[in-house]
Amino acid sequence: MASTLKEQVNGTDVPTWRKLALQHRKDQLAKIPLKWQLETTSIPSSIDQKSAVPIIEAHLSAEELQITSLSTTLPNIQSWIGDRKYTAVQITSAYCHRAALLQQTTGCLTEILFSTAIQTAKAQDEHFNTTGQLLGPLHGIPISIKDNQDIVGIDSTLGWVGLVGRPAKASAPLVENLLQAGAILYCKTNIPQSLMMSDSYNHLYGQSVNSLNCNLISGGSSGGEGALVAGGGSITGIGTDIGGSVRIPATLQGLYGLSPSIGRVGNRESTRRDKYVVPPVSGPLTRDIESLDVFMSSYHSTRPWLDDPAILPIPWRQDIVDSYAGLQIATSSRSRTTKRLKVAYITNDSVIRPQPPVVRAVEHTISNFRQAGHECISWNDIASKHHATAYSLWLRAVLADGGERFAALCQQCPGGGEPLIPGMLVGKSSDTLDNAGRQALYDEIWSFQRMYMRLWRDQGIDALVMPVTQWVGLRPKMWVEADMYVGYTSIWNLMNWTSLVIPSIKVDRKLDVLGDEWKAYQGVSKSDEYNHKHYEILLNDGELDDMPVGVQIVTGRLEEEKAVGIAKMLANLS
Amino acid sequence: MASTLKEQVNGTDVPTWRKLALQHRKDQLAKIPLKWQLETTSIPSSIDQKSAVPIIEAHLSAEELQITSLSTTLPNIQSWIGDRKYTAVQITSAYCHRAALLQQTTGCLTEILFSTAIQTAKAQDEHFNTTGQLLGPLHGIPISIKDNQDIVGIDSTLGWVGLVGRPAKASAPLVENLLQAGAILYCKTNIPQSLMMSDSYNHLYGQSVNSLNCNLISGGSSGGEGALVAGGGSITGIGTDIGGSVRIPATLQGLYGLSPSIGRVGNRESTRRDKYVVPPVSGPLTRDIESLDVFMSSYHSTRPWLDDPAILPIPWRQDIVDSYAGLQIATSSRSRTTKRLKVAYITNDSVIRPQPPVVRAVEHTISNFRQAGHECISWNDIASKHHATAYSLWLRAVLADGGERFAALCQQCPGGGEPLIPGMLVGKSSDTLDNAGRQALYDEIWSFQRMYMRLWRDQGIDALVMPVTQWVGLRPKMWVEADMYVGYTSIWNLMNWTSLVIPSIKVDRKLDVLGDEWKAYQGVSKSDEYNHKHYEILLNDGELDDMPVGVQIVTGRLEEEKAVGIAKMLANLS
Repeated sequence: MASTLKEQVNGTDVPTWRKLALQHRKDQLAKIPLKWQLETTSIPSSIDQKSAVPIIEAHLSAEELQITSLSTTLPNIQSWIGDRKYTAVQITSAYCHRAALLQQTTGCLTEILFSTAIQTAKAQDEHFNTTGQLLGPLHGIPISIKDNQDIVGIDSTLGWVGLVGRPAKASAPLVENLLQAGAILYCKTNIPQSLMMSDSYNHLYGQSVNSLNCNLISGGSSGGEGALVAGGGSITGIGTDIGGSVRIPATLQGLYGLSPSIGRVGNRESTRRDKYVVPPVSGPLTRDIESLDVFMSSYHSTRPWLDDPAILPIPWRQDIVDSYAGLQIATSSRSRTTKRLKVAYITNDSVIRPQPPVVRAVEHTISNFRQAGHECISWNDIASKHHATAYSLWLRAVLADGGERFAALCQQCPGGGEPLIPGMLVGKSSDTLDNAGRQALYDEIWSFQRMYMRLWRDQGIDALVMPVTQWVGLRPKMWVEADMYVGYTSIWNLMNWTSLVIPSIKVDRKLDVLGDEWKAYQGVSKSDEYNHKHYEILLNDGELDDMPVGVQIVTGRLEEEKAVGIAKMLANLS
Repeated sequence: MASTLKEQVNGTDVPTWRKLALQHRKDQLAKIPLKWQLETTSIPSSIDQKSAVPIIEAHLSAEELQITSLSTTLPNIQSWIGDRKYTAVQITSAYCHRAALLQQTTGCLTEILFSTAIQTAKAQDEHFNTTGQLLGPLHGIPISIKDNQDIVGIDSTLGWVGLVGRPAKASAPLVENLLQAGAILYCKTNIPQSLMMSDSYNHLYGQSVNSLNCNLISGGSSGGEGALVAGGGSITGIGTDIGGSVRIPATLQGLYGLSPSIGRVGNRESTRRDKYVVPPVSGPLTRDIESLDVFMSSYHSTRPWLDDPAILPIPWRQDIVDSYAGLQIATSSRSRTTKRLKVAYITNDSVIRPQPPVVRAVEHTISNFRQAGHECISWNDIASKHHATAYSLWLRAVLADGGERFAALCQQCPGGGEPLIPGMLVGKSSDTLDNAGRQALYDEIWSFQRMYMRLWRDQGIDALVMPVTQWVGLRPKMWVEADMYVGYTSIWNLMNWTSLVIPSIKVDRKLDVLGDEWKAYQGVSKSDEYNHKHYEILLNDGELDDMPVGVQIVTGRLEEEKAVGIAKMLANLS
């Protein structure tokens, strides 16, 4: 449940940062039209009403329900607009309403831009009516965006109290290019303090929870985005990923989530090797693979590389997508496979053992590949030999500023002393690397990259299927308590390789039963032990029932189209 | 004339670094077979024998002359090998011999690898004879490489006495990929101390001079490479460029020289934003455009991106090359132009006025574009408004380490105190930027890039023709004396855009006569004044007669194929 409405200022001993935060949440709520505001009692509070979806759907009109249905795709909206079935105002209003309801049940939003979004939609409708021309492939389509992307005139607080009231002086190139394609920006989405954990909460906006089970977390750092898309409040959301931040919310909420190589989706920080030893990337989250594909081609149709130095001039290669998507013909007869893929898979990297449904998700996807006639080989030995090293390199990289930036942000709050949430992946002063240290680390990463690239090349691997994260669900604050490992995802940021999360299975207490072997397992670390013990607790509590579990499809550097094509092939199989 | 043979150790008051350097030059000479060593008297010393070419050609056999003729191209050698006209040993020996002669007349080499090169060629011939298969597209083809690319077991001294005897532990990915394509590495080429000037001399290997006029410099920092290729001692040489280091030697010696965007030709340093605010790139130098095109496609045929993290997985797009090369059909009839290019040109960036032949080179190339029916517009106003800013950003970037690295290299010499050559583009401690300073500079560069990208996009420019450098020839040591500006080239490193140098005209005292306006010109800075005054002196001395002058064809980010295609179109016109 979102903490937004539960918080109370109870007296004068409340510190300044907290008073400011609570006032900010009231201001945020005030940006939701009164008619869309929920009674507190509408918010799910029992285990019997875990998902936010039925609660919010009860408040939507039939038209809004059709527009924002969980089965609506981006191409659906494109054709509704093009065929004049719905106007941009109808589409935008429906998504604003649904997003408003999700915000009140899951805490998924930060900035609320409904009013200007609807004005923009109105202007777009007028343009379309007058000229008969759409403004671009995303004309009239509401796109949600993570809080860390600048929109001119709007705060990018990143959840820091001290950053309230400092609107961005210019929009990020990604934002400009989305607007150029006709997209309508109607909200920004919630993140963790520092962005460096997989549980999206911060003092300013509070806790973002999972749309599919409000007792569990939405993941992070693009947690609000994941909750919004999974709850139907967005057709496509843009997250960012430095170690799993698009992919973990995607797997937890049954979504597709793309973490591309640097240079495919705008992110000002992607090219800042001065600031990041391993930089972040931006990537979309969607409920279906067609929407993700169409989003990428729509965005690329604006030729973003002509004014965004962080984007490579590589247009969206639809022919590659289609060539892999077409490999589904192999299903009916093995001999009809035009290209037999060599697919590697990992069920355990030997650092932390994944929970049983995670293993089953990999096995399920691999059985689909096999069914389509492709060759599948275990990559567990290689993972076990090298992935711990990758994690240690990645950790040193992300901790290299010694937490200086975040310490400064804590002090930026009026009155100072906004507390740093303990347990995030934030450096201590002993982690700080000077320039020589950074260069030495860069050398180690380079050597690791070359070694791993050769393993991949020499084995002739087309794609790798593996867990996204070792756990399938956690309650708020458990992630930091567990000192959780993100090495299943962070290795691909270290490598700068494409990874696409696709949904695979849902947790089923009958299938994901705890065997003797699991019960007898002794954890090899605190995190492993925690991951082991709490799976049993949450499973027995029924919290994990029907929760989705995805897998990563990893395809190599700048192989986004191949990943999307493979995902389409698999989607057609199932 | 190369200083190699003129240096004498005259007593015990010689400092250690100098003794070691002179010993090293003797060791270097000893790697040239005795039968290839020249009498000192063969070396040109009068103005009547400016070019090294006739002197060295007098020492070659008829077969060697044919193989290494200045009109030989890379495809010629490929077909000679494929058709068994010449063996790899014949080809390699001929190039080793010619390179040995050029070394003795121009000082163009550092490491001499003739003996192992000929052994490798022998093994390749045996392989071809036995299997009928070539090892790759560069089978049996000698490729020369600048001293700063690591070859396992060979020194990469970069001209520093203190780095002698420290062989590289591994080869650079570029070297490995060239070997994989079948190339034979037979020498490394001379550079300036620190790589940060356009005059290739250092204490270890001495002065590299221009093959076409040994009284003038070969440019830098890929000066030895330029002299070797221009003198016929290499069919394709690999240089590196951080501010003009491929392009300046190319224009001075009548060559094609490609400075690509980051990610097309292997360079370990290209991705090191931790070390460089503006990083260097590698690029080939050739005497003809066909060789450059074929080199790029041959290198890319090894798919270097599969094990070199610095290479983007963008294969050499021959279709793009061909589509621009084919625009030559416009020559016969304007109406046959399939695509009318919009070509901008700069004759003066208003920081330093180019010498008259440089302006004439731009005008000549522009008249060729016009003749082919393309639209040409002046870009002088934009250059005058923005290029000084670009230079100041670039200078701050390359000086940002405060010269620390080079100060340390000076001390690395046994006995210490190898002197730093004054006047290079090396930072002082006051230029040092800390991490915050680097990030602020990076922001300024980013804003400049976006501004300039938009100018280009909004004007719909296909290519820009402009000077390579404001001067056409200098004697040794004049470059540092002049405090020379490299802003005509460095802006494209700052932008990370493709720039290809192509030859345009030759200096002609009748055409490049000093008019009243030039004589009355008052320089706006010390460099401008120097550039102005010394052109007159060198022209009147006859030093510049027939010296080649090239221009840059600038095409934007990762537009290497377009630049090569345009150069082919122009080559076909002339």
